[in-house]
Amino acid sequence: MDVGGTADHGTTRRHNLSVVLSHLRREGPRSRARVAEETGLNKATVSSLVADLISRGLAIEGRTERGGIGRPGQVIEVDGGQVWAIGTEIKVGHVSALAVDLRGQVVAEQNVLLDTHRLTPAEVLSALKDAVQRTFETVPGFDEEPMGLAVAVPGLVESASGVLTSAPNLGWRSVPVIDEMRRLLDEPPYPVILENEANFAAVAELNARELVGADVLLVTGATGVGGGVVADGHLLRGGRGFAGEVGHMQVDPDGHQCACGRRGCWETLVGLHVFLAAAADPDDYVHDPAVDVQLRLSEIARRAEAGDGRTLDAIARVGSWLAVGAGILIDILNPDLLVFGGYYGTLAPWLVDSIQANVEAEVFAPDTGGCKIEFSTLGFSASLIGGAQSALDIVFQDPSVVPVRAELGRPVA
Amino acid sequence: MDVGGTADHGTTRRHNLSVVLSHLRREGPRSRARVAEETGLNKATVSSLVADLISRGLAIEGRTERGGIGRPGQVIEVDGGQVWAIGTEIKVGHVSALAVDLRGQVVAEQNVLLDTHRLTPAEVLSALKDAVQRTFETVPGFDEEPMGLAVAVPGLVESASGVLTSAPNLGWRSVPVIDEMRRLLDEPPYPVILENEANFAAVAELNARELVGADVLLVTGATGVGGGVVADGHLLRGGRGFAGEVGHMQVDPDGHQCACGRRGCWETLVGLHVFLAAAADPDDYVHDPAVDVQLRLSEIARRAEAGDGRTLDAIARVGSWLAVGAGILIDILNPDLLVFGGYYGTLAPWLVDSIQANVEAEVFAPDTGGCKIEFSTLGFSASLIGGAQSALDIVFQDPSVVPVRAELGRPVA
Repeated sequence: MDVGGTADHGTTRRHNLSVVLSHLRREGPRSRARVAEETGLNKATVSSLVADLISRGLAIEGRTERGGIGRPGQVIEVDGGQVWAIGTEIKVGHVSALAVDLRGQVVAEQNVLLDTHRLTPAEVLSALKDAVQRTFETVPGFDEEPMGLAVAVPGLVESASGVLTSAPNLGWRSVPVIDEMRRLLDEPPYPVILENEANFAAVAELNARELVGADVLLVTGATGVGGGVVADGHLLRGGRGFAGEVGHMQVDPDGHQCACGRRGCWETLVGLHVFLAAAADPDDYVHDPAVDVQLRLSEIARRAEAGDGRTLDAIARVGSWLAVGAGILIDILNPDLLVFGGYYGTLAPWLVDSIQANVEAEVFAPDTGGCKIEFSTLGFSASLIGGAQSALDIVFQDPSVVPVRAELGRPVA
Repeated sequence: MDVGGTADHGTTRRHNLSVVLSHLRREGPRSRARVAEETGLNKATVSSLVADLISRGLAIEGRTERGGIGRPGQVIEVDGGQVWAIGTEIKVGHVSALAVDLRGQVVAEQNVLLDTHRLTPAEVLSALKDAVQRTFETVPGFDEEPMGLAVAVPGLVESASGVLTSAPNLGWRSVPVIDEMRRLLDEPPYPVILENEANFAAVAELNARELVGADVLLVTGATGVGGGVVADGHLLRGGRGFAGEVGHMQVDPDGHQCACGRRGCWETLVGLHVFLAAAADPDDYVHDPAVDVQLRLSEIARRAEAGDGRTLDAIARVGSWLAVGAGILIDILNPDLLVFGGYYGTLAPWLVDSIQANVEAEVFAPDTGGCKIEFSTLGFSASLIGGAQSALDIVFQDPSVVPVRAELGRPVA
């Protein structure tokens, strides 16, 4: 009986290469026999697929498996030390780039302080291109092209067109970021992808926890406040890719004016600049944009540690407004896990108790609907890492995009 | 090559029966040849599958196709006039039951006014069972069991256990609705399913529009305010099935006390009782719980039509607060479509302009992120219809659950 079309041989093999490589990433090093058992593929097929992955530099034979099922065999693990992608980010105050290889290792990093909201988009993108090229040069021992380049931005992204629609904190509107980056990089052979920074950060948090099929919400705090929503294991983008704009939820109708033009948006209460303004006088060192934000936050943490009243009050105020917005988000999305990233991660020791207690009171469902609250440990690199991981996804989806090493000197994009 | 397990013959056939029946429902009456062309199944297979569907009373031969592709043939359409399910609902002020057949026709309906929030859960469920049995009796010409029974409730449902966790407007907590209904109905052979009323209403709105893979948000207004979120064509339930509790978003921190114990929840501003209190004095006819809510709303509509200032002011106030909450929801979810149901549907002519204009100003994304706003035309029956449709889904997923007519007298549940 005709079952409505079957996959051709090449499609099936590509699919099975993907199954084996993804299995090795998720489950860790193991024998061919164990891969066969766990994936349902037969042993001869797995051997052939593993040989293929090894020939492309994507897998490698390692030590003898301990504690495995059946007789010990040669252990296979993800290699991909020569397969890598670039994650970049444009923020208020800096541009950054970072290279991640297929094993998930960060192999190069560039952070350039830059007064991004006073420069034109063309100037900022040009500086970003320079950071990308310096990153290329510092990836140790690589003379091959990356598999892709990801650009994270603090604003609305229309996924289909690759246009940054609006980023109020940068003062940008309708910037064709992908077209412009491709032009600056001389139309590279690899894909360039664009995404809201919180969406990429959510990908990184998901990968860091190896969560499959979960409902996860990431809230990142910087000048703006971003949200990345993962529903049933997939990024929720909405009809036009604008979902997750949690920073502009109106939580205080009588509140302050926001950069977006409205009043009382969540980020007017829990954004980084608002927090710093409450924590320190205008001439305080912690406001100096010429100093890396992580260093300034370390100073804030030092003051909190020392029991400084003004610092602790400012943190408590942010904590209580974080709980209000988190309550709304949990009522709507009922996530299994809510992760606070960006500057909230640095202030976690002083935020955790107040957020936990207040969120409990704000959420309609009992026991916060079962939602766990965690703080990110990826710092301000989360979006860069998640972007690079997203760019590497094409390898896990179709390992045959990476050529057999003996046959070709560089990956086919 | 082994591709990791293939489906057995029976599984494939059940899948293909489902493909053909679902295709007929979605695309309407058409010839076997056209079904074959559109589904990619071969013609002999389609003929065999159609014969099978006809033998189960799920499809029927109709008129000759006009304007079809190729030579006119005998047209096949969904029958299922003898295959049906029951949708029920518990609300503040009434319980209802309704029967829908596989063609989507409402074939029987019962609405019982009942002071649900003054009665115990046991008393209300007993009244609901009576309404279900009277509905059974009035389904014309049927002596067969329904395919399933759906119960819609205005509160939090823990899907896995079938327990209504909390419904503040009924004053219910931790009521095992499914177990209790199964007991009252003498452990029936068909499934009993429980869901938040807005989730079932969202299913009905989706089916009414034949939207596939869309992002849709339904907001229903009654005493409480419910939300049903559809992402990429699937109901978003969240980690524990508590997603969509939009009525308890805190939108006014200085607002009134809510039945849930918090302050300034959205439903304290846009719920039906709050609206009626603003629109009319306490002794006004429109507050009388002994009168069907649809009749009372017709009176409100009549007054708005006549230009009554107090009525129009109350509607305008609800409209502007609806826009505030809708703005938050659109910022987070970026739906393609937002449908206002329940009492908002009745007041649509006076709400539409104020909501449209205000939402535009509230949403961060330009042009409201492309979100269209519509009003439901299903009235207060949306949850009942969506519930019955959900109960009938098992037939579309696996038509072989309905026995061949000559072989058995009643469906196998």
